[in-house]
Amino acid sequence: MKKVGIIGATGYAGVELVRILLGHKNVEIAALSSVSYEGQSIDKVYPSLKKICTKNLVSADEVLNSCDLIFGSLPHGLSEEFAVKCVASGKLFIDLGADFRLSESDYKEWYKGEYKNADVHEKSAYCIPELHRERLIGKSVVGNPGCYPTSISLGLAPIVKAELIDLCSIIIDSKSGVSGAGKSLSATSHYVECNENFNPYKIAAHRHTPEIEQNIGELAGKAVKVLFVPHLLPVNRGIESTIYVNLSAQISYDDIIKLYKDFYKNEQFVRVLDKGETSCLSGVRMSNYCDISLHLDVRTNRLIIVSCIDNLVKGAAGQAIQNMNILFGYDEGEGLQLVPACI
Amino acid sequence: MKKVGIIGATGYAGVELVRILLGHKNVEIAALSSVSYEGQSIDKVYPSLKKICTKNLVSADEVLNSCDLIFGSLPHGLSEEFAVKCVASGKLFIDLGADFRLSESDYKEWYKGEYKNADVHEKSAYCIPELHRERLIGKSVVGNPGCYPTSISLGLAPIVKAELIDLCSIIIDSKSGVSGAGKSLSATSHYVECNENFNPYKIAAHRHTPEIEQNIGELAGKAVKVLFVPHLLPVNRGIESTIYVNLSAQISYDDIIKLYKDFYKNEQFVRVLDKGETSCLSGVRMSNYCDISLHLDVRTNRLIIVSCIDNLVKGAAGQAIQNMNILFGYDEGEGLQLVPACI
Amino acid sequence: MKKVGIIGATGYAGVELVRILLGHKNVEIAALSSVSYEGQSIDKVYPSLKKICTKNLVSADEVLNSCDLIFGSLPHGLSEEFAVKCVASGKLFIDLGADFRLSESDYKEWYKGEYKNADVHEKSAYCIPELHRERLIGKSVVGNPGCYPTSISLGLAPIVKAELIDLCSIIIDSKSGVSGAGKSLSATSHYVECNENFNPYKIAAHRHTPEIEQNIGELAGKAVKVLFVPHLLPVNRGIESTIYVNLSAQISYDDIIKLYKDFYKNEQFVRVLDKGETSCLSGVRMSNYCDISLHLDVRTNRLIIVSCIDNLVKGAAGQAIQNMNILFGYDEGEGLQLVPACI
Amino acid sequence: MKKVGIIGATGYAGVELVRILLGHKNVEIAALSSVSYEGQSIDKVYPSLKKICTKNLVSADEVLNSCDLIFGSLPHGLSEEFAVKCVASGKLFIDLGADFRLSESDYKEWYKGEYKNADVHEKSAYCIPELHRERLIGKSVVGNPGCYPTSISLGLAPIVKAELIDLCSIIIDSKSGVSGAGKSLSATSHYVECNENFNPYKIAAHRHTPEIEQNIGELAGKAVKVLFVPHLLPVNRGIESTIYVNLSAQISYDDIIKLYKDFYKNEQFVRVLDKGETSCLSGVRMSNYCDISLHLDVRTNRLIIVSCIDNLVKGAAGQAIQNMNILFGYDEGEGLQLVPACI
Repeated sequence: MKKVGIIGATGYAGVELVRILLGHKNVEIAALSSVSYEGQSIDKVYPSLKKICTKNLVSADEVLNSCDLIFGSLPHGLSEEFAVKCVASGKLFIDLGADFRLSESDYKEWYKGEYKNADVHEKSAYCIPELHRERLIGKSVVGNPGCYPTSISLGLAPIVKAELIDLCSIIIDSKSGVSGAGKSLSATSHYVECNENFNPYKIAAHRHTPEIEQNIGELAGKAVKVLFVPHLLPVNRGIESTIYVNLSAQISYDDIIKLYKDFYKNEQFVRVLDKGETSCLSGVRMSNYCDISLHLDVRTNRLIIVSCIDNLVKGAAGQAIQNMNILFGYDEGEGLQLVPACI
Repeated sequence: MKKVGIIGATGYAGVELVRILLGHKNVEIAALSSVSYEGQSIDKVYPSLKKICTKNLVSADEVLNSCDLIFGSLPHGLSEEFAVKCVASGKLFIDLGADFRLSESDYKEWYKGEYKNADVHEKSAYCIPELHRERLIGKSVVGNPGCYPTSISLGLAPIVKAELIDLCSIIIDSKSGVSGAGKSLSATSHYVECNENFNPYKIAAHRHTPEIEQNIGELAGKAVKVLFVPHLLPVNRGIESTIYVNLSAQISYDDIIKLYKDFYKNEQFVRVLDKGETSCLSGVRMSNYCDISLHLDVRTNRLIIVSCIDNLVKGAAGQAIQNMNILFGYDEGEGLQLVPACI
Repeated sequence: MKKVGIIGATGYAGVELVRILLGHKNVEIAALSSVSYEGQSIDKVYPSLKKICTKNLVSADEVLNSCDLIFGSLPHGLSEEFAVKCVASGKLFIDLGADFRLSESDYKEWYKGEYKNADVHEKSAYCIPELHRERLIGKSVVGNPGCYPTSISLGLAPIVKAELIDLCSIIIDSKSGVSGAGKSLSATSHYVECNENFNPYKIAAHRHTPEIEQNIGELAGKAVKVLFVPHLLPVNRGIESTIYVNLSAQISYDDIIKLYKDFYKNEQFVRVLDKGETSCLSGVRMSNYCDISLHLDVRTNRLIIVSCIDNLVKGAAGQAIQNMNILFGYDEGEGLQLVPACI
Repeated sequence: MKKVGIIGATGYAGVELVRILLGHKNVEIAALSSVSYEGQSIDKVYPSLKKICTKNLVSADEVLNSCDLIFGSLPHGLSEEFAVKCVASGKLFIDLGADFRLSESDYKEWYKGEYKNADVHEKSAYCIPELHRERLIGKSVVGNPGCYPTSISLGLAPIVKAELIDLCSIIIDSKSGVSGAGKSLSATSHYVECNENFNPYKIAAHRHTPEIEQNIGELAGKAVKVLFVPHLLPVNRGIESTIYVNLSAQISYDDIIKLYKDFYKNEQFVRVLDKGETSCLSGVRMSNYCDISLHLDVRTNRLIIVSCIDNLVKGAAGQAIQNMNILFGYDEGEGLQLVPACI
């Protein structure tokens, strides 16, 4: 029984980690920290946890001291120091923030921050398990992927790898539920402003863009620029990405579906839908699945890829636990057999 | 490993049974039936189940033949015949409909139906486990409670049992998510009609009224009439009941909370909230919990009881599985350790 | 053409005043103020007003100086001083806040504030037009009613006035859309916390209680205590009140409906529904109507009154304009012929 | 005072016509028909209209006989015969359906129908007023545009007309509120299926595609193919279209905005937003506005156009009334000064 802890346990990703970890057979939650609520028990902050998880919220250092593996669910810029401490003490660290996702130059450009400790980045790997799981061998720090990049990279990987598209043509129109904006109060996540509303935001300027381009570029074997436009969707959970690409070679609809099914044939959490089916949020809600459907527009010779995940599970806490399972050598799906709640 | 099946597996309660049973260690889903979708696999009807549960939907008789215990999730009037067949062949039957909840006279009055087979009703028991679990001993048919009566009876039981209220004063204002109206299309559950709307319906005329009165009457030891007004709430899941009663004896707020905590002290699925806390839907969503908060109006000497459940879990599928666990002698909470999804 | 202005124009009630006043034939919006956004134009704060109303937001004093009538849409405690200035300069003031609704003793008890200027209260009147319009004669300050008390008082007035109910039995279960919580950010109006959620709040302790009791007490001719429980409803607009009363005299359902229809027979904004009809939010959305339906529970001899309004119109801005029309001697419905948006 | 009527008055577009026409100074609603509800009064079907519009629903022929101008709000294939009758009797007809929008060949290909009466099509014109108002001169039948094509054509017109984009590059990702699916019951508009869900539908196969291509082709002066993907958005009202085009010439962001502002400088219902602003549904809700914002991705040299309308107003009833105003020679905006409801 490994001991795990969460730094930043009262954010939405943090409490989702708690919810899922409670059902994991091989780990126990040993400590939780929160700057805002230190000293309170977590079930006072989230009454849904009453009688289920009543741990007191402690300091980050107490979490570091009492656990074998620590999840960091923090604003960017705050994780590196905790990762350094973990490496120093032989512990594992999974960062749900942005500090271990990008090259240093991209991090500087998009986050205006810098890497203070080169060593810890050497010991880290960014990992969407279906694409990069072998990278985790020998690493002690994981850069857990962003929610948008997860849905998009899984949606594009097979067709990019197969070199069947014009790499300049990639346009991604994503829509995210409001939990993606986090627990902090803001006008854009005020109920009356979101409800019955819809709009794009950070058009062609969202910080997940370089992470998407890094993933696609690696698959393509060359630098790629994409156009990424996120939208705020009035639902609690879920990300839908509609991805448009120009096909650069002749390939039938059936062969595209076969290509995707082959690519993901050993994956338990990626489901490639059949002809005539369309991926939707209710298909993956509350689960670690990524559902991908494929659609061909013969009139314009474009492929449309629809990729849906639950932003808090496969887009955050679930994928982090999947990465933890890899680090610990557990079955990758342990604790993640969450049946989607279609209602 | 017991074999269980569901007759009427494609309704909302049916598919919720599937979702929860998939996580149960001691039973396997052996067969599912559906009149509307017979011959198709359930994951074609509910794509969320793709790669998880791909059983073909068969006839009700095939379910009866291949299972040790059968859940009936059917419109009222259709379950009795299946229950009779189960009894005849030594199998167990749990009816999620209304056919085994009421006395014959109430059933006639409120449902305009009749009991055709007195024997099978002798072998049946209505059971909210926290109030009636001992009744299931030696029974082979269970009348699984209605969603509204579950939230209301659990909310009222301690104070009624303690004889502290005026029994003529009970007023129940309940609000239910739209999944309570089922999968059948109707104007009242058409998106545009429900969304951004709110209204009571079947005011003082809902069929759950006699079931509530039966439960409260048994606790009180005398016949009770209640005023019950349900409302349609624009959310998918959840029932909130605000219950108003006149106190008939002097009792402090602290003592009321203590009374409730004592009453439910051994119950894993009923949580009595503390002073200053208020029960809400997000506290119980996707879980088998019933959260009860208590509020005293000293100005009018009334107690206000707020009781929340997930209508599809504690109000239907979860409670049915709880009853199954009792029948099979399993731990009552097996398969039901569902952490509420506060987001 | 009278000049009107709004102090606190960027709150939800303020911008709703703007929306409705723009369609009023006899007044023009001369000035708008906002502490938070002074110096900006209102269409920068509310882009919906682009090309429609582009007034610069000025100081409160500028509004006072340039208008014949001023609406105050401010937190309680801030309106009195503006009312005093209006009275001094022969202008009219309509307060959408709580400063002119209550007796001084109730105000002290429930708002912990005090009346600094007795004179201005002498010159003011609280007014739900359908119940109190004659009070405005000779007054220059109006206490515009609260949203909950409007729906509740209109729902109860005929039956209370007719002395047909037990005055100790009044229980009011109200549900309000989230716009009632205003534009200020708070955890309780954060999208993810409200959406798919439901709960009562300020149970038997809401500040609208004394206003309700004042109105009902005046109708009854004696002091009345009510139990009032508001709930937060996940919709933008609307208040539904389900009101429970014990009948104290024999009266038929038909006679109750007749009583209500007679009471409101000359009122353009109160609609008494017919037998078999139920009031709902979509019936009054975006309009100044109050829809009342009546339901009899012969089993418990109770009357259930369902009263719905749009909290921002009849519950705030619309009623304030109705009061303005009375003060100015216009047709009471001028500018308020807003057809409910059932979709 | 002209007499107008509606055939198909109880659909969502029909009742929205009623709502808006009630505020029009120069016309009166003389007759309303409905196949489903003939003989009932419209306020029984839509209680929101109680005491406001209580007309009996009559036959389509009665509407034809008693009105100067008739709106047809009917499923495709049913309008042509009514248009023929109108032309024969010197009346005007505005079709909100699809029968007068397309060339006969496109109609055959996409709707599998045919034009039975060539004459009536000669006397008809398709008209988005901002683009085609001069076409209505001398016509007596109007093909009122579809909701998606309205938002998209207005969004693309200036840049296409200016020949600044690669016409092969147009990709349109649209999202529509559920009222677009109409009042007929269907699984896809069942509350529980839509709520908290999101998905594309009829990908690259929606019947509005040829209408979009016709409009853009006319502006471009050559045949154009677009990729159009609609999505179902869990809100009642509104269409947001995010449109992606490759720029084919050097033009600055400022010049693009200037191009759009110039193009629409005389239009009261199209608002071109400023740099840094983003169009959203709440900006146009309940109004006849089309809000367009423009965004440049210098990294990929693409223009992103965001165009929002209320699908029931500018996308249906409002635009039909705008067309009526043109036919009757009224001010084009008469009756349409609807201030958007930002809340």
